[in-house]
Amino acid sequence: VQTDRTVSGPESPEFAAVYAEVQQFYAEHFHLLDAGAAEAWAETYSEDGTFDVPTQAAPTRGRAELAAVMRRTARELAEVGEVRRHWHGMVAVHPRPDGSLDVRCYALVFRSQKGGSSALHRVCVCEDHLVRVDGKLKVKARRVRRDDLA
Amino acid sequence: VQTDRTVSGPESPEFAAVYAEVQQFYAEHFHLLDAGAAEAWAETYSEDGTFDVPTQAAPTRGRAELAAVMRRTARELAEVGEVRRHWHGMVAVHPRPDGSLDVRCYALVFRSQKGGSSALHRVCVCEDHLVRVDGKLKVKARRVRRDDLA
Amino acid sequence: VQTDRTVSGPESPEFAAVYAEVQQFYAEHFHLLDAGAAEAWAETYSEDGTFDVPTQAAPTRGRAELAAVMRRTARELAEVGEVRRHWHGMVAVHPRPDGSLDVRCYALVFRSQKGGSSALHRVCVCEDHLVRVDGKLKVKARRVRRDDLA
Repeated sequence: VQTDRTVSGPESPEFAAVYAEVQQFYAEHFHLLDAGAAEAWAETYSEDGTFDVPTQAAPTRGRAELAAVMRRTARELAEVGEVRRHWHGMVAVHPRPDGSLDVRCYALVFRSQKGGSSALHRVCVCEDHLVRVDGKLKVKARRVRRDDLA
Repeated sequence: VQTDRTVSGPESPEFAAVYAEVQQFYAEHFHLLDAGAAEAWAETYSEDGTFDVPTQAAPTRGRAELAAVMRRTARELAEVGEVRRHWHGMVAVHPRPDGSLDVRCYALVFRSQKGGSSALHRVCVCEDHLVRVDGKLKVKARRVRRDDLA
Repeated sequence: VQTDRTVSGPESPEFAAVYAEVQQFYAEHFHLLDAGAAEAWAETYSEDGTFDVPTQAAPTRGRAELAAVMRRTARELAEVGEVRRHWHGMVAVHPRPDGSLDVRCYALVFRSQKGGSSALHRVCVCEDHLVRVDGKLKVKARRVRRDDLA
């Protein structure tokens, strides 16, 4: 069987370009999320993007719903003076033949209390399907599993 | 003296390709480890690969031994409902003239109790010698030091 | 308006080369810092480099002052048997037209007590202006904000 590795293996310049792009994408994506920039963050999903976590009965679907859920969380955190930081790491990128990307990575969430202390909040595994819209990466589907709920 | 930097400096496309490849390698390497995939994980070492940690009297040597040690740890963790996640970061890659790679990086280990909480487990420094076997990166020698035992 | 993205977008080989270079730079920069190598670490700043943190009345400025501050911290930590590890992650790199780089990233600090345990120490946001001196990246200006003091 021909795999994506045959097309463009991890030792190729093409893979390096995609890999750097994914890392930059995640950085900006989480800078927006953690800053509470709901609309700009929702724009980093495709129009029909989904976010699936075990603590929700059904996946969040589409930019309007994504922004609404995020605004609510941001407001709740602001009210109690808590700052969250999302980290993606151990990022494995597997391009599909159509140019979209399957990504499997680890995710950490840290929380800090203003005037208090910082702590590890969550340890998760994240599986993303990233697509291009007008050349830019967007999350089409995200599935997150928390290790403490595994 | 001519250093590896002269051959292919960190601003070159060749270095970027190698750097992305190392990051992808570590991601897949630890996804296998943390999933308990002993044989597949051992395959990411060279045949004679070694793993040296201060808590062992002698380095673990060769794939069969590596897989056996890992299987035992995975079984012990499963029995107590603990999930571990290994993170490499702050990765410095120094190619040798023969194309193999010296890597120095930091390593974190997180632990989560199913139905419980997540915590930082270890903070370490890892020094790897990575070689190519049939074009694919493999760990030939790994030395890990724990900061709390330093 | 033409932005830096038009010049060299995150999907280009040029961006990948810069992105890998920045990651390698941070790795070596923090390996030096955490090893207490004051002079070598200060060399990773430009001659007039500045380091601005909210816990200082004024930014630290220039290599001599940077090295002095770092030596003092390293001595204090050594006296109490504490090891620190600095991690940069979620790195967003934005090249300026002049080739210098604006970087926004997250920063973690871990602390370990020799013979004791390891813990998360700080969660921060770091904004760097990186310039080239004789082709090598240097920190010209760094601003760090701690989430717990936000």
